[in-house]
Amino acid sequence: MQLAIRYPNGKTYIHNDKSSPKKQLNNQLTSFSKRGMSLEEDLNASNQYYLAKEIAVIHKKPTPVQIVKVDYPKRSAAVIKEAYFRHASTTDYNGVYQGYYLDFEAKETQNKLSFPLKNFHEHQIVHMQQCIQQQAICFVIMRFATSERLFLLEAEQLLVYWNNQQGDGRKSIPLKELEKKGYEMYYELSPRVPYLKIVDRLIIKNKDKST
Amino acid sequence: MQLAIRYPNGKTYIHNDKSSPKKQLNNQLTSFSKRGMSLEEDLNASNQYYLAKEIAVIHKKPTPVQIVKVDYPKRSAAVIKEAYFRHASTTDYNGVYQGYYLDFEAKETQNKLSFPLKNFHEHQIVHMQQCIQQQAICFVIMRFATSERLFLLEAEQLLVYWNNQQGDGRKSIPLKELEKKGYEMYYELSPRVPYLKIVDRLIIKNKDKST
Repeated sequence: MQLAIRYPNGKTYIHNDKSSPKKQLNNQLTSFSKRGMSLEEDLNASNQYYLAKEIAVIHKKPTPVQIVKVDYPKRSAAVIKEAYFRHASTTDYNGVYQGYYLDFEAKETQNKLSFPLKNFHEHQIVHMQQCIQQQAICFVIMRFATSERLFLLEAEQLLVYWNNQQGDGRKSIPLKELEKKGYEMYYELSPRVPYLKIVDRLIIKNKDKST
Repeated sequence: MQLAIRYPNGKTYIHNDKSSPKKQLNNQLTSFSKRGMSLEEDLNASNQYYLAKEIAVIHKKPTPVQIVKVDYPKRSAAVIKEAYFRHASTTDYNGVYQGYYLDFEAKETQNKLSFPLKNFHEHQIVHMQQCIQQQAICFVIMRFATSERLFLLEAEQLLVYWNNQQGDGRKSIPLKELEKKGYEMYYELSPRVPYLKIVDRLIIKNKDKST
């Protein structure tokens, strides 16, 4: 459910800052998919499946909120009356799979032929670098909303594109390159986004690298 | 800062349900320590130290909040006007250390001779079991506020006490047993709570077990 916010003149309020937590909230509330499911909902359902089947323990972190004022009504639950969205200092998802630490971010685009890098924020990129250094399995899941195509891209690869922004100035990852450098995933019934299949390949690949 | 909540009759409102998120918030806002630092503040500072020194990437998860109403003032940040505390479905801290997934909860007691099990909640215990199954390094950090003694106890050990509650009915872990089964930690300048020293020992112990 998304409520349209209107100015007194009746015009709908459109907020353009992609990095705003408000926008992130709207993304949670809105579903862009023809299937009626957002990437976040699909991932939450997938994580629930993995948890129920005792395959992995992966959770989405709560939205960070700065709480300013709380009311304590006598006979009911505490009500937060004033709070503000804060920027997360990490990615949204993490957890454990067969002893491996997994860490990832999930993003969608309405673009058709490239994935804009502005979907990622500096603090998330820094966090991914820190995780890679600690031998985490770190990646992003990207969805093209109109074609419903899904990719997993290792954080190492994302960092190459991120750092190249200063160089060649390209602000997005072309779909054609994602097809080569990333791993395409296909929706299933359960789990909806079978990303651990790709993680299995990454684990084998990393083992080969270290031997 | 903690605001005293008063009934109309002037009596201070004291909420006894330890499992209430409100109580958890109060714990965040109040400092019980003679040193003027809560266990949470000490752990956050320790995690910042480990992060800055590139030793580990451990974060406290944000308090989960159910957001009901958000205002979008024209020229300022979105304001959450109605929200409720939710129970976390996991422990508070997790992250990665040299490829190992760490997961833990931190609790304080005012008791002197035993640590009450009611400090832990069913959902946290379930999460710890799930993590252990995925080969996580999972533990709790316990602090006796009056003596300032600090212990790390492996989740496997905590589960023994938890499950024994039905059997012998003992609702707390005696300090004398924590001295034997847990690992005592001592405050340092930086990191304030050097818990990774104990984690190093757990890693070696687990390796010995598996060989």
